[in-house]
Amino acid sequence: MPFHDTPRFPRGFRCAAVHCGIKAEGRDLSLFASETPAAAAAVFTRNKVPGAPVVVGRELIRAGRLQAVVVNSRVSNVGTGEDGVARARRMGEAAAGALGVDPALVLMSSTGVIGVPLPIDKIESGLPTLVAALQDDPLVGAAGIMTTDTFPKAVSMSVGNATLTVVAKGSGMIEPNMATMLVFTFTDADLDPITLDTVLREVVDDTFNMLSVDTDTSTSDTCAILANGLAGPVAAAEFRPALLGAFTRMTELLARDGEGATTLLRVTVTGAADRREARIVAKSLVNSPLVKTMVFGGDPNVGRILMAVGKCFDCSVVPGRIAASICGVPVLVEGQREAFDEGAVRELLRRDPVDLEVDLGVGDVRARAWGCDLSHGYVDENAAYYSS
Amino acid sequence: MPFHDTPRFPRGFRCAAVHCGIKAEGRDLSLFASETPAAAAAVFTRNKVPGAPVVVGRELIRAGRLQAVVVNSRVSNVGTGEDGVARARRMGEAAAGALGVDPALVLMSSTGVIGVPLPIDKIESGLPTLVAALQDDPLVGAAGIMTTDTFPKAVSMSVGNATLTVVAKGSGMIEPNMATMLVFTFTDADLDPITLDTVLREVVDDTFNMLSVDTDTSTSDTCAILANGLAGPVAAAEFRPALLGAFTRMTELLARDGEGATTLLRVTVTGAADRREARIVAKSLVNSPLVKTMVFGGDPNVGRILMAVGKCFDCSVVPGRIAASICGVPVLVEGQREAFDEGAVRELLRRDPVDLEVDLGVGDVRARAWGCDLSHGYVDENAAYYSS
Repeated sequence: MPFHDTPRFPRGFRCAAVHCGIKAEGRDLSLFASETPAAAAAVFTRNKVPGAPVVVGRELIRAGRLQAVVVNSRVSNVGTGEDGVARARRMGEAAAGALGVDPALVLMSSTGVIGVPLPIDKIESGLPTLVAALQDDPLVGAAGIMTTDTFPKAVSMSVGNATLTVVAKGSGMIEPNMATMLVFTFTDADLDPITLDTVLREVVDDTFNMLSVDTDTSTSDTCAILANGLAGPVAAAEFRPALLGAFTRMTELLARDGEGATTLLRVTVTGAADRREARIVAKSLVNSPLVKTMVFGGDPNVGRILMAVGKCFDCSVVPGRIAASICGVPVLVEGQREAFDEGAVRELLRRDPVDLEVDLGVGDVRARAWGCDLSHGYVDENAAYYSS
Repeated sequence: MPFHDTPRFPRGFRCAAVHCGIKAEGRDLSLFASETPAAAAAVFTRNKVPGAPVVVGRELIRAGRLQAVVVNSRVSNVGTGEDGVARARRMGEAAAGALGVDPALVLMSSTGVIGVPLPIDKIESGLPTLVAALQDDPLVGAAGIMTTDTFPKAVSMSVGNATLTVVAKGSGMIEPNMATMLVFTFTDADLDPITLDTVLREVVDDTFNMLSVDTDTSTSDTCAILANGLAGPVAAAEFRPALLGAFTRMTELLARDGEGATTLLRVTVTGAADRREARIVAKSLVNSPLVKTMVFGGDPNVGRILMAVGKCFDCSVVPGRIAASICGVPVLVEGQREAFDEGAVRELLRRDPVDLEVDLGVGDVRARAWGCDLSHGYVDENAAYYSS
């Protein structure tokens, strides 16, 4: 995939991030805006206790048009009832007012602590400064939306005459099942909202929906795409693989930056009976605490691979047909441990990424899931997240 | 429940444990035996890569009669194919020969590393010594079957004129879905195999099947009960609540000794629409890494309770009806964070056990699940289990 060495925006998009006082220090309010209204699509968390911005966002996206996204960090505006919904609307209206655009064209997102009122006054006060700071580097916006992320995440690439730029955040409470975390995608390709929606859902299903840091599905997951059309039409058949490439790369960045992670873990399942089963088995491996600690420890306890396959009760698993490899070295053949050079595999497990491959031997369907190891860092970050 | 202060065996049962050389040091081979054949029932793991002892055990239990159980630790005889099955049979035959009983009456269990051949010669050599060492203290057998457990687990109680004794091991790779870990129950009550099987399955479903240390379902889970009848008949209606009490206590001992655990975590869900949903929500909370690290850190990040309820996509969850408390202190009311004394809740989170209660407010069904916190100890134990 022809990624740009330094991420940049498509024509007509800019962003900004400022400190408005929600966090004690650091940028906590960000804005992404197009100079013209854009076709848009979005998918949101399947968590049944969605945040207020998700409730409002679902309404807004029905029109298939957006011009800006305003995002705060530190407070997620989840578990805040009707008052939270009113504050989410005020956040969008304040951004629309400062930008001089229709409030129906501004999506809002919030992530951070659940159950705390959104400090809407600080956000409203900060917006004029934020609009005045709009500039061309997507990494500025990517940094502004970070919570426990250790680095800002933005990638961009060319697709035909157009540019495609993905900005995201997220490193914990991540097992999306519909959309994931916060992912904002900007393009100057001209695509209609229905095509955007179709392509977005298909690509998300094979990328962000196959990512898990910790099996915990966020209440704020939002993945939106804005296409302002300034570069002219791009065929869906050309746009789809570009989006797939960009989302795959972003999925790997998010998994690699999973809370406490020391390595990206990629699990590829082949030989499955069908797509559903391939995905379930891949997720089972990437979510198994015993597989994740095995990777962290660099300890080739390959029986855990068998265990994690076998606990997929409703899948077609034939013990005598299971094969597996670690970074290309066969460790299980016909359901039994294969003799292998343990020292060499220990070395391979220190790599980043670590690839586990499992062949179920019962069909010809394939799936891939992304995750990370489970380390002391995860426990440390989450034992005192609320107070810190 | 009238538990005995010191666990003891029912009439006619004895046990022994010796070092036969599978581990470098410590007891690694145990035997539990009745002086007469007993009615018996058992449930086994639903993992689709079951160990050889589970494969053989499923055959043996069909006759509804057992007289002894032989158990080794350190090597699980899983992922070992036909040769593993042959070795499991040899293990049962060796125990039967040393005891002078029918091999069809000896159940065998193995736990430990997956994918390594069972050292059957050492087991066969050790059996005469093992039989010679049979004695009356169930804690000796409980200690002999331990792997990463930090203490031996046995409880006993009276039920009518009879005694009921439960011996178990297990602290990691624990989210049983059918039976769990190794649990051996002995009674001198006279009960027929069909009644035993029915009562066992019902009680397991509300106790061990609601236990999870780490979401990872073992390939070796076995829960067997032997009733030798020496104390005469006990009505099923009297026996069932006794077994429920004993299994509940053992479930709490197992959860409390979860790998790295610093506290037992009990989650009670009330107000659910039906039994299935109550159980799913309770398990979601007890399995959430973010809830578990919150408990470890003593940090009342109560939004995570909402998240863990909300990620039960297929359950009847109405955000505005959710209430929750931590050790009796209301922290969520009508889906929103309730003002509470954070310092007091921090203190309560340092207790053992920690009780989380969630009322879904949509029905009248209740379920309880048991687990533990997620600490550095879990990561340490499992980063180098195979090699250690």
